[in-house]
Amino acid sequence: MENLMPVPSHIQAGEGKYRIENTFQVKVDGVISPRISAGVSRMVARLGGRTGFFFPQVFFNVADTVEGPDLVIQAAGIARMELGMDESYVLNINEDGLQLTAHTDVGVLRGIETFLQLLDADEKGYFLPAVYIRDEPRFPWRGLMIDVSRHFLPIEVIKRNLDGMAAAKMNVLHLHLSDNQGFRVECKTYPKLHELGSEGGYYTHAEIKEIVQYASDRGIRVIPEFDLPGHATSWFIGYPELASTQEEYELQHAYGIFDPTLNVTLEETYVFLDAFFKEMSTLFPDSFIHIGGDENSGRHWLANEQILAYMKANDLKDQHELQSYFNGRLLEILGKYNKQMIGWDEILQPGMPGNIVIQSWRGQESMVEAAKEGYRTILSNGYYIDLTQTTEFHYLNDPLPAGTDLSPDEEDLILGGEATMWSEIIDTETIDSRIWPRTAAIAERFWSPASVRDVDDMYRRIKVFSYQLEELGLTHLKNAPYLLRRLTRDAPIESLATLVDIIEPVKGYRRNEIRMHYTYSQMSRVVDVAIPDADKARSFRKMVSGYLEGEAKDTKLAAQILSDLKRWEGNHAQLEAIIKASPILWEIESLSADASACGKIGLEAMDYIQKGIFAPEEWAVNSWSTVYHARRPRGQAELMIVSAIEELIDFTAPDLSKNKGDNTLTGKEIAEGWKLLFDGETMEEWRGIDRKKIPKIWEVQKGTIFCSGSPEGLSGQGKNLLSVEATSYFEFAIDWKVSSGGSSGIFYFCPENDGEPLSGSNLQMQIGDGEKSSQLDQTKASGSVWGLIPASSENANPAGEWNRARILVRDNGQILHIQNDKTLVEYAPGESWFVEWEKIVAESSFKGNPSIEKPERFGHIGLEDEGSEVWFKNIKIREFK
Amino acid sequence: MENLMPVPSHIQAGEGKYRIENTFQVKVDGVISPRISAGVSRMVARLGGRTGFFFPQVFFNVADTVEGPDLVIQAAGIARMELGMDESYVLNINEDGLQLTAHTDVGVLRGIETFLQLLDADEKGYFLPAVYIRDEPRFPWRGLMIDVSRHFLPIEVIKRNLDGMAAAKMNVLHLHLSDNQGFRVECKTYPKLHELGSEGGYYTHAEIKEIVQYASDRGIRVIPEFDLPGHATSWFIGYPELASTQEEYELQHAYGIFDPTLNVTLEETYVFLDAFFKEMSTLFPDSFIHIGGDENSGRHWLANEQILAYMKANDLKDQHELQSYFNGRLLEILGKYNKQMIGWDEILQPGMPGNIVIQSWRGQESMVEAAKEGYRTILSNGYYIDLTQTTEFHYLNDPLPAGTDLSPDEEDLILGGEATMWSEIIDTETIDSRIWPRTAAIAERFWSPASVRDVDDMYRRIKVFSYQLEELGLTHLKNAPYLLRRLTRDAPIESLATLVDIIEPVKGYRRNEIRMHYTYSQMSRVVDVAIPDADKARSFRKMVSGYLEGEAKDTKLAAQILSDLKRWEGNHAQLEAIIKASPILWEIESLSADASACGKIGLEAMDYIQKGIFAPEEWAVNSWSTVYHARRPRGQAELMIVSAIEELIDFTAPDLSKNKGDNTLTGKEIAEGWKLLFDGETMEEWRGIDRKKIPKIWEVQKGTIFCSGSPEGLSGQGKNLLSVEATSYFEFAIDWKVSSGGSSGIFYFCPENDGEPLSGSNLQMQIGDGEKSSQLDQTKASGSVWGLIPASSENANPAGEWNRARILVRDNGQILHIQNDKTLVEYAPGESWFVEWEKIVAESSFKGNPSIEKPERFGHIGLEDEGSEVWFKNIKIREFK
Repeated sequence: MENLMPVPSHIQAGEGKYRIENTFQVKVDGVISPRISAGVSRMVARLGGRTGFFFPQVFFNVADTVEGPDLVIQAAGIARMELGMDESYVLNINEDGLQLTAHTDVGVLRGIETFLQLLDADEKGYFLPAVYIRDEPRFPWRGLMIDVSRHFLPIEVIKRNLDGMAAAKMNVLHLHLSDNQGFRVECKTYPKLHELGSEGGYYTHAEIKEIVQYASDRGIRVIPEFDLPGHATSWFIGYPELASTQEEYELQHAYGIFDPTLNVTLEETYVFLDAFFKEMSTLFPDSFIHIGGDENSGRHWLANEQILAYMKANDLKDQHELQSYFNGRLLEILGKYNKQMIGWDEILQPGMPGNIVIQSWRGQESMVEAAKEGYRTILSNGYYIDLTQTTEFHYLNDPLPAGTDLSPDEEDLILGGEATMWSEIIDTETIDSRIWPRTAAIAERFWSPASVRDVDDMYRRIKVFSYQLEELGLTHLKNAPYLLRRLTRDAPIESLATLVDIIEPVKGYRRNEIRMHYTYSQMSRVVDVAIPDADKARSFRKMVSGYLEGEAKDTKLAAQILSDLKRWEGNHAQLEAIIKASPILWEIESLSADASACGKIGLEAMDYIQKGIFAPEEWAVNSWSTVYHARRPRGQAELMIVSAIEELIDFTAPDLSKNKGDNTLTGKEIAEGWKLLFDGETMEEWRGIDRKKIPKIWEVQKGTIFCSGSPEGLSGQGKNLLSVEATSYFEFAIDWKVSSGGSSGIFYFCPENDGEPLSGSNLQMQIGDGEKSSQLDQTKASGSVWGLIPASSENANPAGEWNRARILVRDNGQILHIQNDKTLVEYAPGESWFVEWEKIVAESSFKGNPSIEKPERFGHIGLEDEGSEVWFKNIKIREFK
Repeated sequence: MENLMPVPSHIQAGEGKYRIENTFQVKVDGVISPRISAGVSRMVARLGGRTGFFFPQVFFNVADTVEGPDLVIQAAGIARMELGMDESYVLNINEDGLQLTAHTDVGVLRGIETFLQLLDADEKGYFLPAVYIRDEPRFPWRGLMIDVSRHFLPIEVIKRNLDGMAAAKMNVLHLHLSDNQGFRVECKTYPKLHELGSEGGYYTHAEIKEIVQYASDRGIRVIPEFDLPGHATSWFIGYPELASTQEEYELQHAYGIFDPTLNVTLEETYVFLDAFFKEMSTLFPDSFIHIGGDENSGRHWLANEQILAYMKANDLKDQHELQSYFNGRLLEILGKYNKQMIGWDEILQPGMPGNIVIQSWRGQESMVEAAKEGYRTILSNGYYIDLTQTTEFHYLNDPLPAGTDLSPDEEDLILGGEATMWSEIIDTETIDSRIWPRTAAIAERFWSPASVRDVDDMYRRIKVFSYQLEELGLTHLKNAPYLLRRLTRDAPIESLATLVDIIEPVKGYRRNEIRMHYTYSQMSRVVDVAIPDADKARSFRKMVSGYLEGEAKDTKLAAQILSDLKRWEGNHAQLEAIIKASPILWEIESLSADASACGKIGLEAMDYIQKGIFAPEEWAVNSWSTVYHARRPRGQAELMIVSAIEELIDFTAPDLSKNKGDNTLTGKEIAEGWKLLFDGETMEEWRGIDRKKIPKIWEVQKGTIFCSGSPEGLSGQGKNLLSVEATSYFEFAIDWKVSSGGSSGIFYFCPENDGEPLSGSNLQMQIGDGEKSSQLDQTKASGSVWGLIPASSENANPAGEWNRARILVRDNGQILHIQNDKTLVEYAPGESWFVEWEKIVAESSFKGNPSIEKPERFGHIGLEDEGSEVWFKNIKIREFK
């Protein structure tokens, strides 16, 4: 009973147990639909699989006339697969028998899943605990989107995931069927769509029907997405006349945002789409069709004279109005075939009718806004399971968080949400481990009451749920040993598994940033076996925190910690030879060595802790240094025990890990490679630009570097400060404050001999008065890349208060602006994979400036004289070689 | 190179290595067929999966114009999927490049599999060793039969197994599509076949086409089997008018041989079959159709007046002639649709034309006979992989063993063979582990030269092959941990895995004899996870034998043995709590305890051995007794380390384990429960029948019991000897010899007060002069069940030489006659699952004799006076309680 997932809306424990014997029989008493008979057959098979019983009943194709059944199932009616269908059920278990009743056959299916989760055993055999459950979902739209365009997925992958969804009581499968990388469904009207746009990977009509039927049998709707007008390359291989530019189209095998766009100004396009959607409307019976609508750059539109002329003639002032016009036309077509429209955020443009549904990938704020405008919405932001975030992260993300100012009617417009499985970095072998079990936590968020938010309890239950998913054919657990065997070239896998248990793939979009993947890439490396939320590492971190919080008194916890540390300490010695014999593993050799080094340091720290003595300074500094380097991703994976090891070191060396005042470094910081750029007394690390002396407006004032600011009209004339040392990849930290209305900037990659004022040709993290920031053009607010990229939020303190700025330049060219511990900007100027850059510069005042378009990646740090009073302290830098 | 499987027909190692880098490219130079382009794509994907490289090439849909390719592939033509197609290839690898050439695109596929098996790695990275391989198959028919009738198998199961077959260079998939338990293919002409005969489990036309295409893409022919005229219940649910009796037909869910039979005397039947085979001939493009033909009891024919009249009118004297007539008619129909006929042994009847193919399930002898009559044959006897025999057993079974007296032309008629996966005791989750990896050994038997027979080397290579099969999606390895997790109810699986590693399912047909399984039964118990050829146990047995043969001097081997024994000794302590918490495991609790007991005894024995002392007598006897009881199957599984433990005990107690002369028991025999029934001096354990004194013709003579034999005409009058004790389940052993031409018998289950001579109403193992035996009716030869069941071979010694007879009565009612260590008869009189018994009795001289039809399963042992001189000694018995 304590393992139910999702937690039912109402549950009341009873007294006693109902025994399950090999004579177990079910009587279906009310309506018998195919959904019920097949669902009950599957239930009995799963029960048989778990118990080993050969039950007397066979197939539930026909009404059973069972005497004295154990379980009586009664549905009042047959559900239509549509938004808002009744999925509630009541499950009543006591010593005398089992009853499952529901308004619809889908309710019965939901109840069956709960029923199966209740199976338990004791010394007398199998039983179900007495309980009364009345259950219904919180949100009517509980979806999973699967992108079958980037990596095509055979039908059996879809089917087993439908089974997983049903187990988690989800009810919408959203198939992302077309994109730049592939058109994945047979189109009889325009066969060149799938023939030329798929490289053979597409679903036939028969297969789609099979998917739809399979889903419906499990109470799941299927919603097809045809992403338009962008993300459309795959349409143009066979039908280039639909495109906005006339070129040789080829399928994309790489990932990113691309320009090919539907020409929405031609009437022929609508003739095509009409016939296309007519066919698809029949193939997909659901009343919704998803039209994508996201990430249309508009570039191909604006480069086409005919389109420009059309826009002018029709008074469409920009690409957004043109897309809005297109959506309107699409809406007409869908309406003709009795379909409602759903699309990503971007389809929400003035003039769209109220019955569309908005799928928010950009955030809760835009979602709440849409609801206020009267639109129905579902949330996907925060549910991007391809980004390998933790389960907890997704679990606590609520489509309708407490504290919005929505009215009850507006709240009703929040229909639920969808987890999104984008398929750039998955394949048939790894997708299940990316979807499951994390998606069960999201499913619970959609089904259970909002108050169900206990993370520890969720982690406990999801582990059980994860095991139960296996009986549905999901491979999220069982593929790992196979993948490990292939990696070790059939050597024993235990030591590699020990390492994999404590690593995770780098989060967010970093994998593709580090190494470009392709639609045909095999996901067979160590990082692909690593799961997004490494159980073992998480529980170790929890143990260490608990142990140290308890003042290291819990000897049982200490023993468990030591046991883990010992295993890791010795692991590399076993794994090393296996790595050497298998080239695919070479990329994680140093990661494995670091894991063992962490184990060793952890053991040493535990020894100091258990002896009650402080660690020697040298040991602590060396250990921090090792641990710091162990944080680096290798093979696109990160070691997830490092923070816990660090906690242990910190605990053994409390003085060295604590700060001793402004403009000093802790032992730990020294170990991590930090260097002070200001000692509180001299400006030796700084000089004026163009190798000149320090301008007079800069001086040391009470342990700070103070700039009094050039008089009005004279700032920006080169009286900036420049660091003596130059560097390429680094982390730079600085504390700053300004006087009222004041601002300054931190330049980076400043060249040696420029002559130009820094502000004209350098990237800059703008800083300034927090109260003033919000009144500015956001690309000029504190934290922004000045004049180029806005900060994602405003968190600078008011004038007179200290702030902390950090600039991080990663070895893949990625730059982060971090203000008061919040990352406000993440970008990668001039990197080919950061495709937006070109456009950002073109639309800025730096247009045509080569040192911004393709910035030098080496140079000095600059502090700006912007005519305001500004103070700096705690200035430090560490370089990455 | 040393891992290739099957071993190529010609291989010559070269010098050097060819490096595989991430720039690896393939050029297809000759014919490009879809088979080649898809095959090469799959090859590149597998190479990418293993190496982690993202290769520059993508899809091989079109001719590639590659400069400086690494691998050049050249096929001269496109193969037609037919018997005898050219599958040869040449693979040439040297430091300068790689070439794969073949006469056909199927040859290319075969070469690709070899190519992938050659991938290796060293400290510089991946490479292929220089080698020249010229390869072709020994037999043209290398098949796997899958029975999809008993347990229906979804198409993805078939597809992944086709991939496995292709990896093993097999070329025929034989689908057993109809049987009493299900009709598994859509029939548009007669839709009630699949609609009413399948319970929803059948392949649609589209799916069959997909299977045929998938197979053809891999160079594999698909041959459908429609089993007729018996095994036909599933036809009659929808079309009862085709049956020989008019009754309510229902699908069988149980297993066995059943009577429903096609009425082959109605012209309507042929009209039906003509239309049916017309449809199937189009659906299945191969030129062969399998018509089954096996195990037709003929009972329903002989019970039908109309059929009897037809037979009389058409001069068909028995059921065999009627079946022959039917086959002739079928042959006409198949001929009309350009199909050749293949069927099981039984279709070979006088008058069948020479172009049929006989599939021998009954044995090599019948196969050789068929070849001599000019028929083409394939062998399946010895390849019944459902019977969970060892890999070695199948591997050494040769379709064309050395030493047949076939002419070269006749040898050419032996086309190859098929492994048969009957599906009574498998399901979707376990089938792969029943097929693989053992079938790879059979595939090698069919492909490689006959001289490739090194069992140890096969076991070494098949392990590698087994791992490589995983990349094709086969679940034979990866399903085990999942199944174990379900069994332990998510408790740690290590200790259960340790046990499962050393057990095997009971062999042969014993599983169904112990517990009836059904078409809908889940195969989820411990025995279903156990594999047929437990690696770990086999290697342990080998180590122990090697260690003892080496006089216990190899300390490294000793250390390995000790390590295994220690793990087993401690295992039950860990597993016990898990078993107790999971009712499905209760059936193996004592097996687990016995495994640990074996571990403990093994350790103690090793201790004596290593100390160089003999074990105490009490310890030895107790240990033998424990080990003897550990042999019992539990949960239908057997512990496979017992014989090795026994070897260790024997070694420590050589005197006690050796025989001290006639009519004595060894300590080991005493431990195993044996009791002497003759001490060499007195006949105390025996008396005359009907509680009478011992007849005068019996006396003790020089340590034997001697019967001088009643004078001619007076034997068979009750002067037999009867054991004093009576029993039900037992093993009885006796040494015997006769004078020239002499014979006797050993009765069992003799009643207390009969009055009848034993020979009139008792089951009897006949014994007698080996030279005379061969001249007799084989049901009266030595070893037979007299007058009822012939001995399977003649191995009695000539008169005057001693023989050893053993009779074993198992607790499932099964009785074995064993003569000179060979099992000659295995039957189960009166047991419902031994369906043949009724017929055997009806056709014997015991017809109508109730004490034979349903024999008492309790009574005395009788020794027969058959009028000859006969001597007995070493008479012993052990009872099973």
